[in-house]
Formats: sequence, structure tokens, C-alpha cells
Amino acid sequence: MRLRNVTNARKTLEEHPELIILEPGQHRGQWRKLFDNDNPIYLEIGMGKGQFICGMSRRLHDINFLGLEKYDSVALRALQRLMASPCRNAMLIRGEAENLLEYFSDSEIGRIYLNFSDPWPRKANIKRRLTHFEFVDRYKNILIADGEIHLKTDNRRFFEFTLQHLNEYGMKFDHICLDLHAQEPEDNVRTEYEESKSAVGALIYQLICKFR
Amino acid sequence: MRLRNVTNARKTLEEHPELIILEPGQHRGQWRKLFDNDNPIYLEIGMGKGQFICGMSRRLHDINFLGLEKYDSVALRALQRLMASPCRNAMLIRGEAENLLEYFSDSEIGRIYLNFSDPWPRKANIKRRLTHFEFVDRYKNILIADGEIHLKTDNRRFFEFTLQHLNEYGMKFDHICLDLHAQEPEDNVRTEYEESKSAVGALIYQLICKFR
Repeated sequence: MRLRNVTNARKTLEEHPELIILEPGQHRGQWRKLFDNDNPIYLEIGMGKGQFICGMSRRLHDINFLGLEKYDSVALRALQRLMASPCRNAMLIRGEAENLLEYFSDSEIGRIYLNFSDPWPRKANIKRRLTHFEFVDRYKNILIADGEIHLKTDNRRFFEFTLQHLNEYGMKFDHICLDLHAQEPEDNVRTEYEESKSAVGALIYQLICKFR
Repeated sequence: MRLRNVTNARKTLEEHPELIILEPGQHRGQWRKLFDNDNPIYLEIGMGKGQFICGMSRRLHDINFLGLEKYDSVALRALQRLMASPCRNAMLIRGEAENLLEYFSDSEIGRIYLNFSDPWPRKANIKRRLTHFEFVDRYKNILIADGEIHLKTDNRRFFEFTLQHLNEYGMKFDHICLDLHAQEPEDNVRTEYEESKSAVGALIYQLICKFR
């Protein structure tokens, strides 16, 4: 997701080091210290405007949530949401999925969420898809053994690619749903994008998988 | 698929041993002799009224097609279709998927088609689904190495089950499509059921997979 550039976005981000981390590499292997507890850390890669991470952190108090976002302008929106209703167990990171291994040590993350990731439809951009092998290798590294990846998308081609690609990788599919909102699970926390797509009748796909 | 019982269906089937095999076990390991050539044999399990098997055999002259059907009344429909426009490379079998190993020897089949198989939605009937492990074990046995399974269905739950189950089995997914008719491939041969479901807007799912 990109938003119109917001003037002084970076400045505002810098004013809230207690809520958003701008140099995540400095906390590698020590994220639990930031949260001041030993709870598992769940990471959303591409948190967008933060509705999901805020909703999840309010539901699951015994989990620490981290939301990673690439763009200052988008991270600002999430920061504003978090400031409006603070959660002790949620923090944001301004960073890039390409650099996950610089941010997290082995098995530091308990679960990864990929919500409505950019589908990068052109073949030339296949390596940018967040379910491409090169990213999956990183996830394997930072996830605990048995740690799950939870993925939602409304993009059919991206989901087809993901199923095929993660099967090829050897991942185990714990749950597949090809119409999540047909009988929406009570514990499903919608993203803003998910709400807008569902309102116009788009199918929402879901995959929960793990490494063998 | 079941149809109203047709009086004397079995009698009519018996009158056409050149088109429909009623004792398939007698040809185990020797199906090519029946076709009088060495071409690969592709098997459709649950051929219904035979539109698919007839359409395929007319398109691919260098393949021998076998259509397996459980019910006399349904096999009769397929027989009538085949009689109306005979194909040298297509034959029918009145038999049951449970007995595949009695009908075919190791690696005798080049490809398996599962078109709109009964989804058996109740959990109590999970073992009857044609993508359950117990059937898949049989497919592995009769298929050549690298032989593909081509599956189509409009049943979401059955497709979700199939993806999850065949992933668990360790199969390789060569192709997944979650809306086959959105850009229907030129080589897609529709079944009667597929046409009727597509006409009312149902999504058609497709999986092509093989054993590793």
C-alpha cells in the first residue's frame, strides 16, 4: 500500500520511539526486552494502516504484536491509530521485508501474518511477492519451529501462486479457505482493505501453513 | 452421479462388449491389447454421462481413454453417447474406484482425471472422497512415474479438502486455478455438469498434480 506522501511524516514517526521503531536492527534478538515480558512475538509484514495489528493486540493480551511497514506515510496512519487507543502489547516498525534477517534473530518470531500483500501481478516482479522463495527462506529463519504463517488475500492469481509455490517449498497446509467471509470465523480480525473488498463482494482467501 | 434406474440397463451394457467392459479385472495389465496400440492410457474416474471422455478422445487421437463408472444407469448414457459417435480410442468400464488395483497393474495408467467427483460433504463419509489417502494410494500404484492427476470441481469444501490433503500426502502441485472459466483454456473439455454449473455462475476449480 502506498499513500500520498505526508509532509513531515518521518518527523512525527521520530517523535514516538515508544510506539514505532525506526532502527529495528538495533533490537535484533532483544525484542522481548522492549515489551518487558517473555510472551511470543507475532509479526505482521505490511501492516498498512494498522487496523489488524491493533485489533489483534486488543484480543490477545498474552501476545506481543509487531507491525512492519515500508512507507512512512502509511506507518504514520498506523501510528495515529495506535496513539488514539494505545496497547501495551503492540509496536510498529518502519522497515522492509527484504531485511528481516537484520531485524530478527533465529526463532525470535512466533507467527507471521501476511495480509493482502501486494500481488505484484507482472512476471517480471515475481521475486517481490511476499510468498516467493527468497522471502520464505527468511521466514523460516526467524520463525520458531512449528510457527505458523497466516495469509489472507483477495487476489486470486496471488493466492494460486502462493499455494503452488509454498507446496513446492514443502510447507504443510494446516488450513485453506477459499471464501473466508462465507462463514467468517469469530476470531477473524479484518483489515481496512479486507472490509472494503468484502463490501463489494470480493472473495477472501486464507491459508495457514507451517514449515515441516 | 446417480440417475433413475433404467430398466434393462445392464442388458444393454452386456450387448456392447466392444465399447464397455463389465469385467475389468480380466484385462489387468493388458489394456493396450484392447486398443491394439501402445499409446498411453488416460483414465477418468467417474465419467458420468461421458461428454468429457468422448470430447477428449476426439481431440487427442494418440491417447487411449478409459471412462470408469459405478452405476449401470449412468454408464448406459455414456454408452449411448459413444455409440452415437464412436471413437476408436475410447472405451468404458463399469466398475468401482475402490477396486482400481484389481483392474490395473502398476504404472498401466498415464493420467487420471477426476471431474466433479461426489464431494461427500459429511465428515462421516470422508473416506469416500476420491482424494482421500486411501484412493490416492491406489492412484500412485497404477500411475506411471510423473503421471498427472487432473481434477476439476465446483465444490469449494471438497477443493479445500483436496488441496490440504494432497499437500499433506506430499504431492507436487503443477497448476492451481480458482476460476477456470474466467479465462477458459482452449483445451478445456467441459463435462455436462460443468456446463450447467458454469451457466449459473458457479466457480470451477482446477488442480493438476503429480507424485514426487
